[in-house]
Amino acid sequence: MEFAGEITDPVHRSIRFSEVEKEVIDSPAFQRLRRIRQLAGAHLIYPSAQHSRFEHSLGAMHIAGLAGETLLGKGYIDHAEAVQDLRLAALLHDIGHGPFSHLFEEVLEYRCNTTHEEMGRRIITQTEIADILDRHGHSADQICQLSFGQPKVNFMNEIISGGLSADIMDYLPRDGLFTGAEYAKVDYHRLTSSLEVSRNRLAINRSALNSLESMLISRYEMFKAVYFHKTVRSAEVMLLHSMIAADEALGLTDTSLDNYLGLTDEATLERLCALDSSGKYAFAGKMARDYRDRRLLKSVYEKFLHKRDKQKMDRKALQATAARIADAAGVDRNHVFVDASRAHSMPLTPSKEEMYSVLVVDKDRVYEMPVSEIPLVESISGFFDMLRVYTTAENRQKVERSVKKVLGEQETLYMGAGKLGR
Amino acid sequence: MEFAGEITDPVHRSIRFSEVEKEVIDSPAFQRLRRIRQLAGAHLIYPSAQHSRFEHSLGAMHIAGLAGETLLGKGYIDHAEAVQDLRLAALLHDIGHGPFSHLFEEVLEYRCNTTHEEMGRRIITQTEIADILDRHGHSADQICQLSFGQPKVNFMNEIISGGLSADIMDYLPRDGLFTGAEYAKVDYHRLTSSLEVSRNRLAINRSALNSLESMLISRYEMFKAVYFHKTVRSAEVMLLHSMIAADEALGLTDTSLDNYLGLTDEATLERLCALDSSGKYAFAGKMARDYRDRRLLKSVYEKFLHKRDKQKMDRKALQATAARIADAAGVDRNHVFVDASRAHSMPLTPSKEEMYSVLVVDKDRVYEMPVSEIPLVESISGFFDMLRVYTTAENRQKVERSVKKVLGEQETLYMGAGKLGR
Amino acid sequence: MEFAGEITDPVHRSIRFSEVEKEVIDSPAFQRLRRIRQLAGAHLIYPSAQHSRFEHSLGAMHIAGLAGETLLGKGYIDHAEAVQDLRLAALLHDIGHGPFSHLFEEVLEYRCNTTHEEMGRRIITQTEIADILDRHGHSADQICQLSFGQPKVNFMNEIISGGLSADIMDYLPRDGLFTGAEYAKVDYHRLTSSLEVSRNRLAINRSALNSLESMLISRYEMFKAVYFHKTVRSAEVMLLHSMIAADEALGLTDTSLDNYLGLTDEATLERLCALDSSGKYAFAGKMARDYRDRRLLKSVYEKFLHKRDKQKMDRKALQATAARIADAAGVDRNHVFVDASRAHSMPLTPSKEEMYSVLVVDKDRVYEMPVSEIPLVESISGFFDMLRVYTTAENRQKVERSVKKVLGEQETLYMGAGKLGR
Amino acid sequence: MEFAGEITDPVHRSIRFSEVEKEVIDSPAFQRLRRIRQLAGAHLIYPSAQHSRFEHSLGAMHIAGLAGETLLGKGYIDHAEAVQDLRLAALLHDIGHGPFSHLFEEVLEYRCNTTHEEMGRRIITQTEIADILDRHGHSADQICQLSFGQPKVNFMNEIISGGLSADIMDYLPRDGLFTGAEYAKVDYHRLTSSLEVSRNRLAINRSALNSLESMLISRYEMFKAVYFHKTVRSAEVMLLHSMIAADEALGLTDTSLDNYLGLTDEATLERLCALDSSGKYAFAGKMARDYRDRRLLKSVYEKFLHKRDKQKMDRKALQATAARIADAAGVDRNHVFVDASRAHSMPLTPSKEEMYSVLVVDKDRVYEMPVSEIPLVESISGFFDMLRVYTTAENRQKVERSVKKVLGEQETLYMGAGKLGR
Repeated sequence: MEFAGEITDPVHRSIRFSEVEKEVIDSPAFQRLRRIRQLAGAHLIYPSAQHSRFEHSLGAMHIAGLAGETLLGKGYIDHAEAVQDLRLAALLHDIGHGPFSHLFEEVLEYRCNTTHEEMGRRIITQTEIADILDRHGHSADQICQLSFGQPKVNFMNEIISGGLSADIMDYLPRDGLFTGAEYAKVDYHRLTSSLEVSRNRLAINRSALNSLESMLISRYEMFKAVYFHKTVRSAEVMLLHSMIAADEALGLTDTSLDNYLGLTDEATLERLCALDSSGKYAFAGKMARDYRDRRLLKSVYEKFLHKRDKQKMDRKALQATAARIADAAGVDRNHVFVDASRAHSMPLTPSKEEMYSVLVVDKDRVYEMPVSEIPLVESISGFFDMLRVYTTAENRQKVERSVKKVLGEQETLYMGAGKLGR
Repeated sequence: MEFAGEITDPVHRSIRFSEVEKEVIDSPAFQRLRRIRQLAGAHLIYPSAQHSRFEHSLGAMHIAGLAGETLLGKGYIDHAEAVQDLRLAALLHDIGHGPFSHLFEEVLEYRCNTTHEEMGRRIITQTEIADILDRHGHSADQICQLSFGQPKVNFMNEIISGGLSADIMDYLPRDGLFTGAEYAKVDYHRLTSSLEVSRNRLAINRSALNSLESMLISRYEMFKAVYFHKTVRSAEVMLLHSMIAADEALGLTDTSLDNYLGLTDEATLERLCALDSSGKYAFAGKMARDYRDRRLLKSVYEKFLHKRDKQKMDRKALQATAARIADAAGVDRNHVFVDASRAHSMPLTPSKEEMYSVLVVDKDRVYEMPVSEIPLVESISGFFDMLRVYTTAENRQKVERSVKKVLGEQETLYMGAGKLGR
Repeated sequence: MEFAGEITDPVHRSIRFSEVEKEVIDSPAFQRLRRIRQLAGAHLIYPSAQHSRFEHSLGAMHIAGLAGETLLGKGYIDHAEAVQDLRLAALLHDIGHGPFSHLFEEVLEYRCNTTHEEMGRRIITQTEIADILDRHGHSADQICQLSFGQPKVNFMNEIISGGLSADIMDYLPRDGLFTGAEYAKVDYHRLTSSLEVSRNRLAINRSALNSLESMLISRYEMFKAVYFHKTVRSAEVMLLHSMIAADEALGLTDTSLDNYLGLTDEATLERLCALDSSGKYAFAGKMARDYRDRRLLKSVYEKFLHKRDKQKMDRKALQATAARIADAAGVDRNHVFVDASRAHSMPLTPSKEEMYSVLVVDKDRVYEMPVSEIPLVESISGFFDMLRVYTTAENRQKVERSVKKVLGEQETLYMGAGKLGR
Repeated sequence: MEFAGEITDPVHRSIRFSEVEKEVIDSPAFQRLRRIRQLAGAHLIYPSAQHSRFEHSLGAMHIAGLAGETLLGKGYIDHAEAVQDLRLAALLHDIGHGPFSHLFEEVLEYRCNTTHEEMGRRIITQTEIADILDRHGHSADQICQLSFGQPKVNFMNEIISGGLSADIMDYLPRDGLFTGAEYAKVDYHRLTSSLEVSRNRLAINRSALNSLESMLISRYEMFKAVYFHKTVRSAEVMLLHSMIAADEALGLTDTSLDNYLGLTDEATLERLCALDSSGKYAFAGKMARDYRDRRLLKSVYEKFLHKRDKQKMDRKALQATAARIADAAGVDRNHVFVDASRAHSMPLTPSKEEMYSVLVVDKDRVYEMPVSEIPLVESISGFFDMLRVYTTAENRQKVERSVKKVLGEQETLYMGAGKLGR
């Protein structure tokens, strides 16, 4: 692959790109990603977390290239062109994200039953990106297949998303660096160079299990410190509910590409903040302005979800629970929010990314290893199932009282008041 | 000083804040700084440079506190309250910045003869920030005096701005980290702990001269790699000229606080991009959209300025030169841009920040040391005086030819074709 | 406390020292620590791990000072002199170590029933260090009490050794940096600033539990990657047995200070290597020369210890097991070595340092929290109990066969062949 | 090239090695490098600088491999075997170093007119290393030619030593990391990937000139902070003179390989310290014991050398100057030491490594660029020419007075008392 230039990056130092990649990057649809933050509302808590999907997409491309070179060198793929395809697929895997990325995804699903992957597919095949790919001899359909392929049974897809993907190997160290939480130690050089393929699935050489364990621990630490941080979620819950409430008025989920490609974090926030302070959309406007000026919701309750409760926690169930709490407290139903770590608006929804097992290659033997056999990983999963209740500052006391009646005593992490409820 | 909380920061790890600082930070006027990037257009070249004045202001406060503690410990200031004042002044030193910070400053000066310091003074004294300061027993006027005091003869002012300031000790490592250029090694712990006061001026202990030298080298490297990078300036020249040209239509420089506090990078860019593609403001709109989609101006010429030429290079002189080149090339005068490293729109204008000498304390002796005596620093200054010519891609060839007639042969850095023209 | 100078350090950047500390550091007994590696034989596997007890002792002093300042600020100790005592105690806590530090400790205990703490007590009270301390108004006895105090019920002792000590907060990041394993993220600024005292014991503020968890994870990762690494232990087992076997001939455990203070890693190794290659000490000499030239023992077996077996694993029991394996294999008993992670020659012997619970201060409430309640920590402890069998390269096959008969099938980490035997 | 294993390294993260490299590394002659510190006496000032020639040699091999891959990819060398040769040559380039590396080199030259390169040639061709190379199809003579080739006109040699070499690209970041001075930013990835060949000489692509400039600045900063640090040199001057004075008694420069391969830093120091405290070698013994216990010589004078004086400053001239100063002071000639930054015992002797020009490739043009055209580099060279006088603590005052009579007023860096004497 010939390189046409390079970009300086704080995570990977230098990211080189080929001519076709350069043209894709230079397209307005891709440049737009500079204006969609990687971590929606996390910068209200970690002020430096202003990094965008743009940088992340470049980083994911870089790592997909490393993974591809490994597979090419080991003979699992047989021509260099496939490495270029992998890099393009990684570069474009987030092209369909809307404002506040994962948050908008939940709006999309709730309001018009579509996904960022579906939007991505349309952007790749219906904008100039299709022409660019075509001109350089790549098939837009095939890139879509790699970027968003479902079901993800093919090892090529697993390089783009999932537990061993270029995606996770870029976002963990990147989010760690920019938040300053800096937990994320991901040895992506060793991980990518240890990749193998077996049964058409991505596998890992046994010698890299320590690095995999470290990455899974980092993922846990980032989840706790950032992705599901109490106050980060408070900010994000505000945005989420403001967008859902205002959608009808603002047509955010008008999925024509013309509208969609104009939506960026700040442009969307401006429109939400400009909503009338009275009338049907008053609440949506207030939430947005409170978000902008950092007057955040208060967390009044947290509890671990028992296994039997987990499956049911879709948006409707969460809203019903919120309504019961609001009613018991005698406050407006709009003012109580129930949030679960399994919500689709989490950047790391377990249902999408959690690894249950990893395929391990040990010399000439291949076996499926439950992730839970890695000593430290076993204990992590419990944390991923938690429920929180938020409300506005003025309703805090009322809701604090009522929520216990509805949901029982709260169980906070590390309370030392007995074993955690798992 | 009692601390009310702390913030995680990738540069300083943890920044603690007091109650009055918390309230200032939580005011909408201050929260707005999250939406003004520290480095205007540099993220088009260094994609991760998305960091804002918000984080930088927190960092400057942190360092001003370290400097203040040193002076308190050495008896140069006599009560802890003065350290709090210094921290507040550093926190607020950039509060008056408009969209694209230093770029808008040149618009302000050109169009209505005001400065970001003047705007800052008004924001501090006329918004709720004044109330907050007052409620906690601080004088808004005194903080303004510290933040923007002119002339800066007092050592307290020098902690806020200038060559040994909290400002420079935060922005160099921060810009270095976020661009990924990562040159900036600033040992601010040693520098702040070595501060002294003499003749009412800030001085430095001789033992820290090595650290000062390193910081000055870092400043040089950042200047070259980022602040005056050929393509970074290309992007910034576009924004600057778009704002100047569109000001009449959009009222950007309406300096009522109501208007001013609504101006952020992205909101301003949206308005510029929305300008009609025909009529009087067509060019301003085109520049903005080209900036947004990263279709940048091309650099066609660079030359070192001789000492005798330096003083004359104000905006009017630059425009006159551009007009001569455009006329000679037979292209629209709007399409030729002359940029100098001495332009006010540079983040590091030498006239503001360059140190010519430093006061050194060596045991019981105090002396003024010309900065040029630090071996490596001597050779730096030449670089800071350079002129560049940009034009649009389509006019590139015409202007390339004409510019040599008007300005003579170009002299590029490191050409090896003879001594540099200094 | 007035500072007399400072030292540059890759871990803490700069370590300042007072006049009394300077004089202690400059004493020959302390300078000798430069010649005792922190990690005995680990540099044969991690070549850069050449760092010594000298640097570690300075680092521990630095952190003890941070901890002391916190306790002084919070009123748990009432004069600055106590902080100086803590720093001196930390500076001197390893002064009694012999060659190859923890390895020699096992030789000392086995051969003459003494400890490095006992040797340290004698060095502090019987060399010029006593005079230095006395001249500056410190009591050598009191420093010994702090450095080696038994039983460690007092919070002052806990700052020097134990799970929240300056010792662990220095060696984890230091060993991580110098090995290059770099797992150890220890936020010692936050940890020390969150220290509290309750019931005369050291406690931690609830807000720092995340940092404690991270440190405990780092400890686990360093244990696995370095301290109990299969090949690191191979090198160390060789040294240990060479010293035990040669002691009679070389008088290593002659505990006169005159002899003891002349023992350094390299001087001891030279003497071991110079032993005759025939006769009674031939084996000791061969082990030493093989160590020097890196011809290491081979690991032929590893197994987790069940709880019921743990207590019995003292040196005698390990030797008896080795003898049974050797006999079954028909090889020289000298050539089989059984090693347990509970051996005293481990740098991190659980019996010394493992935390079972931590005292937590949460606003006005204090409670004892079992460490096992920190989600990730629960699963770590199992790993700390493992048994390994080593032999020379030429006996490898014979011993591999016999060991299974004596000890059953081996259970290797991450084998995926079923649940780990814990 | 097939890899047989890898080593963890704090500078390069991971260093892989081939089978032949593994065997060379495992030879006793190479393992001995673990016991020769990279920076002789610098650890007395920077305590963590305990790193050895062993790690540095691995690092140099790693970088030589990167450089070789570049040249292979660009067609300047035509088979992979040449890359293996380069790696072996870099691995072995320091194999001939004696105790305290560059210091012993001056002893060797002074006492028996040989060099570490000559010793290296003998070790490679006369020990088992020759057999290993031969068995794997490499010629020991050819490797010697690459490692020590004189005159260094061939680009292959320049990869091993000189201003663009693997040697400098490893030792600068390594020494920076381990001292903690941490100035050294060497972007060896970019530098090695930008290498070109022209006129049979190593050249650099114009795009990497910034990285070259940064490296040269780092070299300057390391020189000032470490290599020629006043106190570092004090320690090294002691060792140097002790070895010269004791050579007759101890036969250090007996250059039989049997003797030479037994010389390590600590073994040599032990022997020097054991010299009688009376008689002919009393002074050599005292210097060594004072070094061991860190009772260092005092610097009483420093002065820049004028160009006309530079050439004359060989060891004899330095000794003659010392004698004049001692006589004028009325102290033993043994007790006055004159040291110059041009001494052969400096790790970075300008005569060996200084670059006067670099060959630059700019598209299809090649030109010789004087290094002095890189703005910052011009001013550095002056610093490299300085003279210092040391004496023992008790003679300090006498010598301080006499030295000025002999050498004139001293000129210290950054004195601010007028222009530096260059």
